[in-house]
Amino acid sequence: MSQGQFVLGAFIPGTLSGSAWRLPEAPLDTFRSLEHYQYIARKLEAGRFHSLFFNDTLDVKLDLALQRGPNSVRWDPLILAPALAASTRHIGLIATASTTYNEPYNVARKYAALDHLSGGRAGWNLVTSLGGGENFNRQEHVEHDDRYARAEEFYDVVSGLWDSWADDAFIQDKASGTWLDIDKLHVLDHQGEHFQVRGPLNVSRSPQGHPVVAQAGASVAGKRLAARVGELIFTAQHTIEQGRAFYQETKAAAAAFGRGANELKILPGVSPVVGKTLAEAQAKYDRQQELLEPKAFLSSISKFVSLGYDLSELPFDEVVPLPPEHFTTNTHQSRQKLVFDLIRRERPTVRQLFNQLTSGGHRILIGTPESIADDLHAWYEAGAADGFNIMFSGLHSAIDDFVDCVVPELQRRGLFQREYAGTTLRENLGLPYRTNRFF
Amino acid sequence: MSQGQFVLGAFIPGTLSGSAWRLPEAPLDTFRSLEHYQYIARKLEAGRFHSLFFNDTLDVKLDLALQRGPNSVRWDPLILAPALAASTRHIGLIATASTTYNEPYNVARKYAALDHLSGGRAGWNLVTSLGGGENFNRQEHVEHDDRYARAEEFYDVVSGLWDSWADDAFIQDKASGTWLDIDKLHVLDHQGEHFQVRGPLNVSRSPQGHPVVAQAGASVAGKRLAARVGELIFTAQHTIEQGRAFYQETKAAAAAFGRGANELKILPGVSPVVGKTLAEAQAKYDRQQELLEPKAFLSSISKFVSLGYDLSELPFDEVVPLPPEHFTTNTHQSRQKLVFDLIRRERPTVRQLFNQLTSGGHRILIGTPESIADDLHAWYEAGAADGFNIMFSGLHSAIDDFVDCVVPELQRRGLFQREYAGTTLRENLGLPYRTNRFF
Repeated sequence: MSQGQFVLGAFIPGTLSGSAWRLPEAPLDTFRSLEHYQYIARKLEAGRFHSLFFNDTLDVKLDLALQRGPNSVRWDPLILAPALAASTRHIGLIATASTTYNEPYNVARKYAALDHLSGGRAGWNLVTSLGGGENFNRQEHVEHDDRYARAEEFYDVVSGLWDSWADDAFIQDKASGTWLDIDKLHVLDHQGEHFQVRGPLNVSRSPQGHPVVAQAGASVAGKRLAARVGELIFTAQHTIEQGRAFYQETKAAAAAFGRGANELKILPGVSPVVGKTLAEAQAKYDRQQELLEPKAFLSSISKFVSLGYDLSELPFDEVVPLPPEHFTTNTHQSRQKLVFDLIRRERPTVRQLFNQLTSGGHRILIGTPESIADDLHAWYEAGAADGFNIMFSGLHSAIDDFVDCVVPELQRRGLFQREYAGTTLRENLGLPYRTNRFF
Repeated sequence: MSQGQFVLGAFIPGTLSGSAWRLPEAPLDTFRSLEHYQYIARKLEAGRFHSLFFNDTLDVKLDLALQRGPNSVRWDPLILAPALAASTRHIGLIATASTTYNEPYNVARKYAALDHLSGGRAGWNLVTSLGGGENFNRQEHVEHDDRYARAEEFYDVVSGLWDSWADDAFIQDKASGTWLDIDKLHVLDHQGEHFQVRGPLNVSRSPQGHPVVAQAGASVAGKRLAARVGELIFTAQHTIEQGRAFYQETKAAAAAFGRGANELKILPGVSPVVGKTLAEAQAKYDRQQELLEPKAFLSSISKFVSLGYDLSELPFDEVVPLPPEHFTTNTHQSRQKLVFDLIRRERPTVRQLFNQLTSGGHRILIGTPESIADDLHAWYEAGAADGFNIMFSGLHSAIDDFVDCVVPELQRRGLFQREYAGTTLRENLGLPYRTNRFF
């Protein structure tokens, strides 16, 4: 990556998110169509995006929003990513997998295979999951601190397994019939509190050494894990000052683990709405907001962050009351903190809060290519970001708008790459190759 | 599928198997190359093969054969299959996944997604695995009977989750903002001995209703599972009489579960070596056998089936002693039975046994396109098979030989399809659509 250019990742939901699916131009059945995702991946690649990222959930929430919201079904990202790897050549593919409801041997193996198959373009978004226990032999979701303790050890096992073989272990000498050099094999023999895993992994070291690890934890335990092992850090930050504080705090925390500032890239999420004029962009945004069901959404988010009262029962133009002093949820402390802070800081009306939150908690950027480029530039220049995770609804026209209008503006200003810098995702991101700890 | 035509599946190993990798024409690094598998999948599709099947293992055997054999590493079939789905249009993709070292919710979801993504071409080879416990928090591999008890329940959970949604559950009514019909959702709420899984699955019903289930169990418990749930039955049978007996026994066992004869297809494996003349085919075969290391192989197989003595210590032309009376292994009763029976029935020399076993226990068919077509025709006509699982080494030239020479001969005789019969794997195999048990 050239000096002075930033990273662009794209977030694509499992289905069209929010109200995007209700727009006349939105296709039906995106959750049954590989072509839908292929279009997106190829378009983003044409726009030189560094990576494409799929989040995940492991259950269907049986709540009021179920009937009206499109988030009930989504493919496993580890099934979608290989298909997109075979459909593209350059863009990185970051798939989410849970450390709470998987086995580390399986996860290590799948990402190593994906890294091979994609020619070094695999990333693992390491999550502890927001729910799902009832689908995995549990009465309820595993507790927050237990999840993170397991996640720390899970990562150690996975990354240890990724180093099972020296890069030159498989000599494949036809004349002597020697397939591999047995001295270049490391048996991990991990004996930990949560895991006992012998190894070695039955996949050879992959093009990146290790697939890139993405992390978005924002609780104390989540931030600690991100600082120790995260290489792409996804975060929701609302002001440049907050962004810069988070940036400095995270890089310092990583440094305390002996990591250099260039070993992790911090990407705040932004949700863009692009128009030729600000008025056109605003009209696009308003059209989507009108199609959302404010009552259902506000009721759902009130429960989601344990607000203690129901926003949907308040008048739309009333100022939102202050939230409780203490955090109480098990599952999404970061989202809870974001909402609570937003209410305390901005004292918004219900309507204003609704508009903020329907972006999934990320900043909404409504504007022209120029104004959006200005905004991203300002954050980057202020040291609040190494780049951005662009939160798309999955609507093709919105991705087209960004790639066709905003990307050229960023390139014209020298802020964004015109060509991929290397072959692997690591090379494109400017992250160091992960050498093998055992060889 | 037309009357009188048989099914052809292909078995492709994770790397070039046996000694194939040592041949001058064999490419190196097949375990790092998507192009290797894409070539194979596309060639088999050009040859109208019904399906392509990948087996799996979950560990690296730290034995004498490790250094010399190519089976140490292989990609997870559930990562490879989606990439090949995006690279082909018609051929079925059957990926192996273990019921012993996975969670049913994850497995149900991955295959449903693969079925969507491939347009209805997914198959699940359900295995209980031959090993791997030490990579999954266990001192050793789970015991045979426990594995099968878990497998039975695992299947029930997976297939129940596949029926979580009616086919028309996702109405996506833009005008009213109704995404789904909540009455067309079934919460499984499975409470069993091994699994407690609430559901619903967060993937919609897939094009085939259920992905095709393949099974190759050959122990008593394995055969029972195959008879109850298997739709493609892979088996190793050495004589037409054995094949016919197995065929009749399996169909009768399925009938006892209320299943029709057309609800499962029985595919014995055969390992072909094709030449323009028999002499040319024999020379090809001999060339590969010479490159194998008989000592290492015989030592390894002696342990693998718990023979009680070491074949590698016997003279190559000595008749093999009789094996023990009783079966003792935990992990591969079917392979053990096959070897023991072979020794008892044929009283082979060590050399003869070596040649038989290096096919992975399957029949070796060395011959011309005509003689191979004769053989397959005879088995099919005798009621010993619904088709065949063609065991390839992964060498491209051997696949080319079969597709370019044997397939046209089979087509000329009216034994094999010239075009795919339908769109989905189920349609192509002549297996019935799986209706939803709850809707």
